[in-house]
Amino acid sequence: MKMYDYTLAPSPRRVRIFLAEKGIDVDLVQVDIMRNANRTPEFYQKNPLGSLPILELDDGSCLSESVAICRYFEEIQPAPPLFGVGAREKALVEMWNRRIELEIFAPVGHVWSHLSKVAEGRGRRFPEFGEIQKRAALDRIAWLDSELTSREFIAGPNYSIADITILCMLDFARTVDILIQPKQTNLARWYSNASSRPSATA
Amino acid sequence: MKMYDYTLAPSPRRVRIFLAEKGIDVDLVQVDIMRNANRTPEFYQKNPLGSLPILELDDGSCLSESVAICRYFEEIQPAPPLFGVGAREKALVEMWNRRIELEIFAPVGHVWSHLSKVAEGRGRRFPEFGEIQKRAALDRIAWLDSELTSREFIAGPNYSIADITILCMLDFARTVDILIQPKQTNLARWYSNASSRPSATA
Repeated sequence: MKMYDYTLAPSPRRVRIFLAEKGIDVDLVQVDIMRNANRTPEFYQKNPLGSLPILELDDGSCLSESVAICRYFEEIQPAPPLFGVGAREKALVEMWNRRIELEIFAPVGHVWSHLSKVAEGRGRRFPEFGEIQKRAALDRIAWLDSELTSREFIAGPNYSIADITILCMLDFARTVDILIQPKQTNLARWYSNASSRPSATA
Repeated sequence: MKMYDYTLAPSPRRVRIFLAEKGIDVDLVQVDIMRNANRTPEFYQKNPLGSLPILELDDGSCLSESVAICRYFEEIQPAPPLFGVGAREKALVEMWNRRIELEIFAPVGHVWSHLSKVAEGRGRRFPEFGEIQKRAALDRIAWLDSELTSREFIAGPNYSIADITILCMLDFARTVDILIQPKQTNLARWYSNASSRPSATA
């Protein structure tokens, strides 16, 4: 089993942190997506969408989409559970993971695509659209801070994949100058805890 | 238990079809989002994002995000399984569900927001961005057709939540003139089968 990875990209990092929390070791193969090393016929056979990460199983078949890869590992090694335990908690983890992805990570991605220097020349850009997405992301991050007022983790009593998604989103957001604000003390506390876990450096 | 629903919206429909496949009956409460009936303090207490569907449990607590609600029901009533069985199949269902959501449903949503008549006046629009998203959606639908060449369902041996996502996406896409093309015979066959299931009218 091996995973195709790119250290600097946020999606593969989600899986690396997940694996570190589980204590699972997987061989990593670096693919330099900024130099289009993923735009090859061989790579498209592994994932027709050309995106990372990809988990290649021992029979040569491949899984892509970071959360799908995480779910595979949750199934083959349930402990510690990172998708919740029991119907209600599993649903809350799914709900929060999606809220972070769709409401915050996605707009931050648009900011990267439409406003960042590093994404220049990678497609038609709409800077004004990027600015709207930036305001949306900032609003949602303020909401996230308020949600964290009275709890240690976002989705339930334990650290979960939704927390991993927040951590990767916040560190990626920083690269496009979207920062935790001084008055967002709940989020700052959460961030300090999450980024102090050994898994954060994975 | 009751679910807040809006018959014409694609996300609540995903859950209604899922429930119909499971044979589960849940009381539905209509919320007219086109008249902003979801923009009330009472509604924001149920879901701070103001979106549908919402499942209100008997203790008054709420779950939102359609896939999270579906997962709740999968856990309390596993048969028939709609998220797959076993690690590999569960991961494939998750992968396909996400591919359809992120690569096709999301661009179709942008087409609705930026180009459709019905979404006029609901926020700043970038028609040229909408056109790019439309081309992306059309490309991905062509890819989906090719993926369905040799299999009956998208993610594995059985009908799954990923098929439900395709059905709701295609029917929503039709409202913005994104149609199955005559040469896309695999997708047409898949669509004919999926929309003939009794659950499709839910």
